[in-house]
Amino acid sequence: MIYNFSAGPAALPAPVLRQAAEELPDWHGTGMSVMEMSHRGRDFVGIAEAAEASLRDLMDIPDDYRVLFLQGGATGQFAAVPMNLAPRGGAADYVITGLWGKRAHAEGSKYLSRASVAARPRPSTLVPPESDWQLTPDADYLHITLNETIGGVRFDHVPQVAAPLVADVSSMILSEPIDVSDFGVLYAGAQKNIGPSGLVVVIVRDDLLGRARPSTPQVWNWFENAKSNSMINTPPTFAWYIAGLVFRWVADQGGVQAMAEINRRKAARLYSAIDQSACYANPVAPANRSLMNVPFTVAQPDLEPVFLAEARAAGLVNLEGHRAVGGMRASIYNAMPEAGVKALIDFMKEFESRHG
Amino acid sequence: MIYNFSAGPAALPAPVLRQAAEELPDWHGTGMSVMEMSHRGRDFVGIAEAAEASLRDLMDIPDDYRVLFLQGGATGQFAAVPMNLAPRGGAADYVITGLWGKRAHAEGSKYLSRASVAARPRPSTLVPPESDWQLTPDADYLHITLNETIGGVRFDHVPQVAAPLVADVSSMILSEPIDVSDFGVLYAGAQKNIGPSGLVVVIVRDDLLGRARPSTPQVWNWFENAKSNSMINTPPTFAWYIAGLVFRWVADQGGVQAMAEINRRKAARLYSAIDQSACYANPVAPANRSLMNVPFTVAQPDLEPVFLAEARAAGLVNLEGHRAVGGMRASIYNAMPEAGVKALIDFMKEFESRHG
Repeated sequence: MIYNFSAGPAALPAPVLRQAAEELPDWHGTGMSVMEMSHRGRDFVGIAEAAEASLRDLMDIPDDYRVLFLQGGATGQFAAVPMNLAPRGGAADYVITGLWGKRAHAEGSKYLSRASVAARPRPSTLVPPESDWQLTPDADYLHITLNETIGGVRFDHVPQVAAPLVADVSSMILSEPIDVSDFGVLYAGAQKNIGPSGLVVVIVRDDLLGRARPSTPQVWNWFENAKSNSMINTPPTFAWYIAGLVFRWVADQGGVQAMAEINRRKAARLYSAIDQSACYANPVAPANRSLMNVPFTVAQPDLEPVFLAEARAAGLVNLEGHRAVGGMRASIYNAMPEAGVKALIDFMKEFESRHG
Repeated sequence: MIYNFSAGPAALPAPVLRQAAEELPDWHGTGMSVMEMSHRGRDFVGIAEAAEASLRDLMDIPDDYRVLFLQGGATGQFAAVPMNLAPRGGAADYVITGLWGKRAHAEGSKYLSRASVAARPRPSTLVPPESDWQLTPDADYLHITLNETIGGVRFDHVPQVAAPLVADVSSMILSEPIDVSDFGVLYAGAQKNIGPSGLVVVIVRDDLLGRARPSTPQVWNWFENAKSNSMINTPPTFAWYIAGLVFRWVADQGGVQAMAEINRRKAARLYSAIDQSACYANPVAPANRSLMNVPFTVAQPDLEPVFLAEARAAGLVNLEGHRAVGGMRASIYNAMPEAGVKALIDFMKEFESRHG
């Protein structure tokens, strides 16, 4: 038994993996694997539509939003967002609260006349109040990262702005309720709370479709993908299928609100253990602490490799911080049971008692 | 028992599916699925490197070529090819021998000053001789589709041209030997002879790296991906893993030369059955008939739905022609056993005897 704290690709619910393994060679008596199905055949179209319906239900996605299942990850959408929303010569604002926002801004800058930084706290340990943001009048959009996977910084409320609000929700989608109608566009790489890597889900409001510049690659043109049900070309069918299984698992747990209650409890316990210890520390402002990604350091940095090795030996794996920042990080997505967080806290206390 | 003639996503080798199902919940005692592994962790890096080594071995890829594992399919590469090889204002030639070449040309045209059609037979039932091609002096590249999946048109030899030769080999990679050194770039969507959809393999000669225009999306920048071992962002890890299993299966069958012998036998039998019948027809010039995709019609078009329904009932599925052209199509990739082709031929004869 191991607990996998990877930031992504991340742990998947055990019942999903069991079902996927059982169904892998022969899906529902069709004599073929989901991987072998024509994406335009009735069986796969049924799988795809059911997955979308589950996600719409879980997130209460309004009817005037399209849901797209695309490739290229969130990093692909860093380019696709300006291509789809801003003309050549357009302008957009970015609030940067961590490394992913920084990368979204850098990639977006390649396709905009002005990609302005509306706010950028240094260090990235909080979300600055909207009153401090420098907004561009008539920006084509404002981009935020609702949860920063590396630094563990989370927006505790949705800003109300004039420009269409675009949010990278890769590491928090389905972990707590989002009011989709607050946003113009939401996008999420699948490999945290949705399924395997290789799939990115884009949720876009109808009135924002049709603005894509002519040079937008066809596979990332949201309008064309909305028209073709994300089947301009062959979609990542197996990842889409697994996503559907995960959506159903979330529903079986009681839905996003029920997941959020568990997630808040998991995160509260872990932050509490960190704060009450003299050995561990998390630098994020309490109001902006992530429910999903909990970075922490030990007081003596030379103990970090010892911590990681002993944790691994105890079955607590992938606790390394992102290579850009070091330290430790526990990613505690939906699929991480409360028992996993408890095991981590117990280990941390025991480690501190020996090394603290 | 069914035989799946889908053009893609297509049938996978049965031993690969069995192994994938067994390993799905717990890969090699790690306690986690391949889907749950960090792409930068030792286990997945090992899987990824082994897959690349197998492919290099199977295709005898020279050392001065990089192998990239990307997302977005061949359709994504239709855009990525001009972005990576031609400056803004650049020129390229396209030989169009079917619908995929036409789509490659249409998408490429968005990023080139001149995307010239060097040759385009109408109807697309043969590859015109190079002496008839209209080539642009100093073109940044020449693009061909080595096997057209829809029309079943195959290049029977590799043209020798001055410009870097770029080939879409989606539906023929690993089905017969390719001399990689004849090409500047080869690319292939995985979902025919490699693995699940959501993965595209790009093989590019070193001297063609570093030409990408600044507006190339990072996830499709070949140079940056070559530097980062295709891990600029999270790659499609599970599809990459399955690809590795397929590569090993091809090696177990004796490699690409052995596959080609089987494939030539399969195709010869099927074309022979078609040609010897008064009921079925294939329009492609014999020298350019595909070894992988065999489109055919029945003399009485109103019998097509009957053929398809009866074939399905007999366990021969996904024989519908592409929706753009209708008719029938048998895709007989590496994973289609000779017994499947024999079963199809037997059914065709029996159907003809009843309806012919």
